[in-house]
Amino acid sequence: MKKKNKKVNAAILIIGNEILSGRTQDKNIGFISNWLNSTCGISVAEVRIIPDVEKTIVNNVLILSKKYKYVFTTGGIGPTHDDITAQSISKAFKVKYEFHKEAYSILEKYYGKKKFNDSRKKMSKMPKGSKLIYNPSSAAPGFMTKNVLSLPGVPSILISMIENCKKYLVKGSKVHSTTLNLYTVESNISKKLGQIQKKYRKIVDVGSYPFFRLGKIGVSIVTRSTSRTKLKIIHKDLLKLVKSKKIEILKV
Amino acid sequence: MKKKNKKVNAAILIIGNEILSGRTQDKNIGFISNWLNSTCGISVAEVRIIPDVEKTIVNNVLILSKKYKYVFTTGGIGPTHDDITAQSISKAFKVKYEFHKEAYSILEKYYGKKKFNDSRKKMSKMPKGSKLIYNPSSAAPGFMTKNVLSLPGVPSILISMIENCKKYLVKGSKVHSTTLNLYTVESNISKKLGQIQKKYRKIVDVGSYPFFRLGKIGVSIVTRSTSRTKLKIIHKDLLKLVKSKKIEILKV
Repeated sequence: MKKKNKKVNAAILIIGNEILSGRTQDKNIGFISNWLNSTCGISVAEVRIIPDVEKTIVNNVLILSKKYKYVFTTGGIGPTHDDITAQSISKAFKVKYEFHKEAYSILEKYYGKKKFNDSRKKMSKMPKGSKLIYNPSSAAPGFMTKNVLSLPGVPSILISMIENCKKYLVKGSKVHSTTLNLYTVESNISKKLGQIQKKYRKIVDVGSYPFFRLGKIGVSIVTRSTSRTKLKIIHKDLLKLVKSKKIEILKV
Repeated sequence: MKKKNKKVNAAILIIGNEILSGRTQDKNIGFISNWLNSTCGISVAEVRIIPDVEKTIVNNVLILSKKYKYVFTTGGIGPTHDDITAQSISKAFKVKYEFHKEAYSILEKYYGKKKFNDSRKKMSKMPKGSKLIYNPSSAAPGFMTKNVLSLPGVPSILISMIENCKKYLVKGSKVHSTTLNLYTVESNISKKLGQIQKKYRKIVDVGSYPFFRLGKIGVSIVTRSTSRTKLKIIHKDLLKLVKSKKIEILKV
């Protein structure tokens, strides 16, 4: 992993009709976002879900790769006709879509020469100049083209590969967070909470999220900052607010 | 619901730091997408997840509302400082952000005059000219401004409100789908499958999705079309392919 940089952001581009149609529940967004923050100090600033349409992939890759330090794509790197991520990224960056020598030899070894058919060979075709992201679970590698890292859509395979992205990424400052679960309603604390957010704006991000648990209504107050010290300071203010309103704190 | 139109699309704009950071797993995308297709014949063509940042909300609302027939936003319509969806949509469309008379009276009645504090009043402030989306579970209404429908982020409340969006939507043609679960690997069928997709392109969309079940690897072949007849025809071709390759079909 490369040297530390203060703020590093990324976008996630989910490519797949099955997520858009609601047939499949996405599990990759939360996983990638949590992993990027906790392991690399990188914050996900935007997510897009788009269909398997070449023009749409090309446009989104170009827009997001300009706007963010890194783009993570998921889906569309398998052997079937609807797997068009690699060829679309080649078009986006105007580089050749060709066999990657090492990827080809990894897959040939994995399947054996006899069973290495055209569909399987397709999984070693990538944008020229791509760096490989090794795949310990099913061999077919992901790849990094410029600042775009392409991973598969199957969550278990993606999870097995994610650590292999690390060496390509610049490390940022990790965002720490605290959560205070309160048995109250948002509109009881929102005025004071807004004042607290205003006081610490730019250094701490304060979020308020209603929850329902065991038939009771509550609010989770989540504070997020790259500074643990600042989080401790704001936490004291939050506890004062809780005390003044006689609100019960939910343990666990 | 208004009269039938052939192809009607929509975008979903998820507004919320908690989804981007991976703290909360989104449950609204799949629900809205399934409901739109099955109830209204509307297909979701794009999803974006963005932070609670006014400028970002304004830009995305403008882009998506121009590009798609409808935009559904979720999140940011509660009483706290980080709930800025209504004011951002007002800015996007350059209309006043003001109290909606009916929303105000709904909330005043719900909370009672004494408990109707400023934070609760805030939930009746909307872009001028918005139409209400009634909320049977917690009173605070969603709203439709031009072609943008704003719903809350809490899934149970959103679900309770979704039927109240129907009257504002033009109905499209429903997309039907069939799924064939096969005990095989993608690269065994991808060549033939690509030929079948090519044969029926523009009328049927064929997707291929690997699965792992009870320790066995398989592929789900999903066909999608507005025509049930076309789906039946392509299904026959798929069964021929399955038979020729001696592939076992997974029942259920």
